[in-house]
Amino acid sequence: MFRISVDCMGGDNGLSVTLPAALNFLKKNKNVSVILVGNPKLLKKELKKHSFDPNLVSIVESSEVVLMDEQPVQALRRKKKSSMRIAINLVKDRLADGVVSAGNTGALMAISKFVLGTLNGIDRPAIASFLPNSKGAACMLDLGANIDSTPENLYQFAIMGSCLYANQFSKDKPSVGLLNIGSEKIKGNETLKLAVDYLSNSNLNFYGNVEGDDIFDGKTDVVVCDGFAGNVSLKTAEGVALMIKDFLKKEFSSSIRGKIASMLIYPELIKFKRKIDPRIYNGAALIGLNGVVFKSHGNTDILGFESALDKAHKAIKNKLNDKIKALVLTEVTNSNVQ
Amino acid sequence: MFRISVDCMGGDNGLSVTLPAALNFLKKNKNVSVILVGNPKLLKKELKKHSFDPNLVSIVESSEVVLMDEQPVQALRRKKKSSMRIAINLVKDRLADGVVSAGNTGALMAISKFVLGTLNGIDRPAIASFLPNSKGAACMLDLGANIDSTPENLYQFAIMGSCLYANQFSKDKPSVGLLNIGSEKIKGNETLKLAVDYLSNSNLNFYGNVEGDDIFDGKTDVVVCDGFAGNVSLKTAEGVALMIKDFLKKEFSSSIRGKIASMLIYPELIKFKRKIDPRIYNGAALIGLNGVVFKSHGNTDILGFESALDKAHKAIKNKLNDKIKALVLTEVTNSNVQ
Repeated sequence: MFRISVDCMGGDNGLSVTLPAALNFLKKNKNVSVILVGNPKLLKKELKKHSFDPNLVSIVESSEVVLMDEQPVQALRRKKKSSMRIAINLVKDRLADGVVSAGNTGALMAISKFVLGTLNGIDRPAIASFLPNSKGAACMLDLGANIDSTPENLYQFAIMGSCLYANQFSKDKPSVGLLNIGSEKIKGNETLKLAVDYLSNSNLNFYGNVEGDDIFDGKTDVVVCDGFAGNVSLKTAEGVALMIKDFLKKEFSSSIRGKIASMLIYPELIKFKRKIDPRIYNGAALIGLNGVVFKSHGNTDILGFESALDKAHKAIKNKLNDKIKALVLTEVTNSNVQ
Repeated sequence: MFRISVDCMGGDNGLSVTLPAALNFLKKNKNVSVILVGNPKLLKKELKKHSFDPNLVSIVESSEVVLMDEQPVQALRRKKKSSMRIAINLVKDRLADGVVSAGNTGALMAISKFVLGTLNGIDRPAIASFLPNSKGAACMLDLGANIDSTPENLYQFAIMGSCLYANQFSKDKPSVGLLNIGSEKIKGNETLKLAVDYLSNSNLNFYGNVEGDDIFDGKTDVVVCDGFAGNVSLKTAEGVALMIKDFLKKEFSSSIRGKIASMLIYPELIKFKRKIDPRIYNGAALIGLNGVVFKSHGNTDILGFESALDKAHKAIKNKLNDKIKALVLTEVTNSNVQ
C-alpha cells in the first residue's frame, strides 16, 4: 500500500480541487491511500459531499497556508504549521511515500529541500515537467529551480531526467538533448561546452545539442537546460499555445460558417485539445530530493490535480529515487567523467 | 532615392527568391532602387524572365558565396569576394543605404561589424525581430548575436528596440519589458537586477520584468533579453506553432467531416494563417551597426524576402540609426544612469 500526502489547502482553488481529485484518484488506483493535510473542519465538510472508502483516507491537521506570493524563505521560516510543511513532514517521517501540492513553487522547493534534503550525488534539485511534442512528450528540466547552473548540475539534471522519463514511460535509455542555440558542439557558453563534454563521456543516451524548436519535434526524450532558459522556454510555449487558441476561437466564432465548421470538426477539436491539454501534462517533479515531491499548477482543476497525483504515484511505484541513486552511482563509477 | 543592396546569392534558395522579391518590392515602392549583388550571368538570365524598370536595377559582380554552415570567422577572413561581403561594402562606401541578405546569420553579423563598425554609444549590436502577439507584434532582441550580456548591453538593447519599434510602427515611446522568470524586481541573476536599475532610471517607457508568455499576450511592445534566452524563446515559439499547425492539419484531414469543415472555415483559416505567417514577420534587424542591415530567414520564399526588404526600407526612410544615435545621447545626458 502506497501513501500519498496531499497539501489540500495549496493552490489557487484549495480543497475544492485537491480533495475531489484525491478521491477520484483513489477510485482509479489500487493499493494506494491518501493523507489529506488541511483544516479538518473544512475537509470533513467537503468529504461529506463525496463517497469514498474511509480506510483509504486519513486527515492530518494543519492550521496555516503558504500564500501563493509568499517569499520562499519566509514560508520556510514562519509557516511551520502550514498544510505544505506538514504534508512534506509526513514524507520525512515515512508516514507518506510522496507528496503532491498545488502551492507556491518556490516555497515547496525550499521547504522540501530543508526537510527532506537532496539525494546523494545530486548537488541541486530541479523542476522537471513533461511537454507535449509531435511524438508524445518530452521531459524538460530544469524549469526554474536554479538560475545559474554548472556543467555538473546540467549533467546531474540529465541523469535525473533520464530516470524520470524511463519511470513515467517505461522506456530504457531515453535520449537526452542539451538545450543550446545551435546544434554544433562549439555552440553556447563555457558552461554548455563543458556540459557537452560530461554528457558525451557519460553512459547516458546523449544526442547532443538541441534547439528550442527541437523540444516539440521530438528530437530527444529529455531536454536539459538551466532553470532560466527552461522557464523562459516553458512560458514561451504556454504563451504561443494560448495566443493561437484565442486566435482560432475568434475565427471559428466570427461567422455562421465558422460555427458550423466547429460543430462538424468537434470530435477532432476535442482530440486535438486533449493532445496539448495542460491538465494532462500537469505535475512537475521536484526531482533530486530525498522523497517524491510533485508540484501541480496552482490554478489547475480536478482533472489536472489528478494528473499530478498519477505522476507522483508512478514515481513512487516505479521507485524513481532508487533508480536515480543507482544511475548516479553507475555514472560516477563507469564514466570517464569524475 | 533610397538604394538597397541585395545579397542575391545568399540563403537556401539564392536568386530564385531574392531577385523576384527585389523586383516585386520595386513595383510596390517609389523612390527606391536596388543593387543586385551576385553572379552577373545568372542574374541577367533570371532578370530576362521579369519585367522591370532598368533605371532602378543595377548589378554588382561577386564571385563567391558565403555558405550557410560556414564559420563566421572563416567567412569574414576568406570570402572577400562573396555577394554578402560586397553587398555590405556598398553600404560602407555609401553606394547603398542599406543591405538585405538571407545568408548565414553569424557571417552577416561578423562581416557587418567588421566592415561597418558599431554605432557610437552601442557596445554590442543585436539581432532584433518582430513576433506576432495578441495585440499585433512585439519587437524582441537580442535573438542570438550575444550569448552573454552585461546590464549595459541590455540597457542599450532596450534603447535600440524602442527605436526600431517606433520606426516600424510609428509609435512614440513604446513600452519595454525585460525578459525574466518572474515579474518581481528581485527576480533573476545579478545582471538582470542591475539591468532593471538601469532601465528604471532611464527615460524609456520601462514596464518592468516580463515572462515568456507575456511576449505573446502583448504586455509590452519591446522585449529585451540576452541572445541565449532570446534565441531559445524564438525557436520554442516556432516549434510550438509548427507542432500545433501539424496537429490541426492532421485532425482536419482525418475525416470527411474535417475536410468539409476546413472548406467552410477556409477564409478564416487563411486570415488566421496570415496573422502568424512567419513570412510577414520575416526580416530581422542587425541593429547597432553603422548602417542598415536586415537579415531574412534563409529558407523564406519571395513574399518573405519582400517583407525583409520592406523593413529595411522603413528603417532607411525613417532614419532608424539617426534616431538610435539621438536616443543614446539623450539617455546618457538625461538619465541618472551613466
